[in-house]
Amino acid sequence: MPNHAKLNFSLDEYVNRLAKTRRAMIDKNIDCLIVVDPSNMAWLTGYDGWSFYTHQCVIVRHDHEPVWWGRGMDAPGAARTTYLDSANIQQYPDHYVQSTERHPMDHLADLLTEMKLDRGSIGVELENYYFSAAAYLSLQTHLPRATLIDATALVNWQRIIKSAQELSYMRSAARIVELMHARIYEIIEPGLAKNELAAEIFHTGIKGKDEHWGDYPAIMPILPTGLDATAAHLTWDDSKLKPGDITFFEIAGCHKRYHCPLSRTISLGPPPQKYLDAEAAVLDAMHAGLDKAKPGNTCEDIAIAFFDRLETHGFKKDSRTGYSIGLSYPPDWGERTISLRRGDRTELRENMTFHFMPALWLDDGGLEITESVVITETGYESLATVPQKLLVK
Amino acid sequence: MPNHAKLNFSLDEYVNRLAKTRRAMIDKNIDCLIVVDPSNMAWLTGYDGWSFYTHQCVIVRHDHEPVWWGRGMDAPGAARTTYLDSANIQQYPDHYVQSTERHPMDHLADLLTEMKLDRGSIGVELENYYFSAAAYLSLQTHLPRATLIDATALVNWQRIIKSAQELSYMRSAARIVELMHARIYEIIEPGLAKNELAAEIFHTGIKGKDEHWGDYPAIMPILPTGLDATAAHLTWDDSKLKPGDITFFEIAGCHKRYHCPLSRTISLGPPPQKYLDAEAAVLDAMHAGLDKAKPGNTCEDIAIAFFDRLETHGFKKDSRTGYSIGLSYPPDWGERTISLRRGDRTELRENMTFHFMPALWLDDGGLEITESVVITETGYESLATVPQKLLVK
Repeated sequence: MPNHAKLNFSLDEYVNRLAKTRRAMIDKNIDCLIVVDPSNMAWLTGYDGWSFYTHQCVIVRHDHEPVWWGRGMDAPGAARTTYLDSANIQQYPDHYVQSTERHPMDHLADLLTEMKLDRGSIGVELENYYFSAAAYLSLQTHLPRATLIDATALVNWQRIIKSAQELSYMRSAARIVELMHARIYEIIEPGLAKNELAAEIFHTGIKGKDEHWGDYPAIMPILPTGLDATAAHLTWDDSKLKPGDITFFEIAGCHKRYHCPLSRTISLGPPPQKYLDAEAAVLDAMHAGLDKAKPGNTCEDIAIAFFDRLETHGFKKDSRTGYSIGLSYPPDWGERTISLRRGDRTELRENMTFHFMPALWLDDGGLEITESVVITETGYESLATVPQKLLVK
Repeated sequence: MPNHAKLNFSLDEYVNRLAKTRRAMIDKNIDCLIVVDPSNMAWLTGYDGWSFYTHQCVIVRHDHEPVWWGRGMDAPGAARTTYLDSANIQQYPDHYVQSTERHPMDHLADLLTEMKLDRGSIGVELENYYFSAAAYLSLQTHLPRATLIDATALVNWQRIIKSAQELSYMRSAARIVELMHARIYEIIEPGLAKNELAAEIFHTGIKGKDEHWGDYPAIMPILPTGLDATAAHLTWDDSKLKPGDITFFEIAGCHKRYHCPLSRTISLGPPPQKYLDAEAAVLDAMHAGLDKAKPGNTCEDIAIAFFDRLETHGFKKDSRTGYSIGLSYPPDWGERTISLRRGDRTELRENMTFHFMPALWLDDGGLEITESVVITETGYESLATVPQKLLVK
């Protein structure tokens, strides 16, 4: 038996996750599921490591323990971090890595053939950062008798309702993001270089406090100022903050790979009236949206209430205004399942978790005041407590 | 004309890069190249932002300025960070983002059709984190008259010889990684929690010093201790260091997205003889490899000299022992072109840059002492200067 010291969840919880996944496989007539999303690999087996830059997967069948497959030098990491029996940790030789001659998925196809899985239906995550077109073409070529079935986000959808242990980790992440925003507000001032501010954000977020130690977030801190904040995803450079600058901070606390994202905006000195108007509009509309955040309503109910109220203030937003969150690896801390937007009629259920993200990008800057929430039996609860306003210093 | 204030290179340098890319396109009979790799997008246009978690690309043709295409909310980021004319910044609506009903590449296919590019040969980066199987299938379906040609790493290969400005940024990254290792050695001691150490690594790396400000590295710090260091890519938790612990630190300084990776290993107290033997073997073999690092030799010459000398010391390594480095985005700071390994007969040329990575993973821990080097006219130069040994504290 492997050493289970590093598992973040009970074996029972992993067993339940596997059972849910297998039921979803049955619904899609999938005999064997190839899970490449590192978040899904971790959720199913515990596997954790920055090895997703080379091909790897977890093979899920109905009647066997899952099999981890990856690069040889990462197999010891699978032994260290998963509950899997050593017989179920399979590796490929290093000459497959970033080779111009052979693809790691050629090796996986051979393994699947050895496992007599080459004639059935094989689910693959067609839309995933870690399942390239070349990976697909390799499996297609080398498994001519198999039927490849789109299983994009099949596992992600099993993750949308959080367990007590998962929520506990997200609450740790919430404590961390509270510390991060407090530290930003404490030190921000004209003359401070953006990278020095980013350095403090990282330091606070990774150090954490007490048992709430910080893991790396799946998205790096985004902290654009002024015109740069008309764009949604610029990071930082060494420019120095000036009086009057308005900067938004889109950051997350992370604990054991579970995230609590939270954005705030800080104005150095009194903000222009336009930003005060935008603040009032966003907060009013956000609460109109959150009033709909309860079991039985749908995701689009939140979004529509938000969009409609925002329009009464003279602002318009056409991008999605939130998404499901939890366990994640770069490049996205969202779960890539539920979106808070028109058309998403997913029913809200207790212990779903969202980043409600009513960001406004204006013609001369941006305003982000967001909340990460968990759906409760009767409504919602904010995970983190940070003053819900356009902060002024 | 857009504001060019944020460009990290002269317009001339971007013009040269484009010309090299177009020549490579001609060699492969490519009319139009779809560049999704964020490193390639940045190298060609200057584009920078954490937006690669949604689909985006640069469209390169032979007779037009490149076109940036991406999510609407990121278009202002393209205007802020690239040299492109605003007419050449194209966006798709937000309901394509992580939709269960439509794929962003459906939109790109329509755009390519409008641009009359739907009948020619279109190069795509089949093996890339940011070109999913679903992306490929969408283009294949919606561009039935086009010929999709594999252009994996076509642009990456144009990047292997660095310009003076690129080397200058890598030297800044080298200053940063020197500071990071110095800080680790300064504070490491029994009782220190790994996440506190990681927090200091980030703080030092992002703060940098003087003009050498730190950007986020494309791989998060890897700092496994003891048995965890038998695996190649474990990050950290909150466990406390103990006397006798041996930890390797695989980290990089990063400046304007250019990297200087460098690994060192620290023993808290005298290391066992096995590690001293490994240290002696790695250092001797590394120098045997580096003696071959000069123009005219090949990449495999370095690797074979290293492997052969290592074996004389009774150690064996079968994984690649280095790779080309430079500009990069997560999840990999390598350029994914040249590998230092048997069979890679790429000729070494002046101003190529490598992370020479003679790591050994043993049965009870790991030893990493690495160097990042630039090939000079007559040999090589180490980018960073950090004591080249198994450090003991």
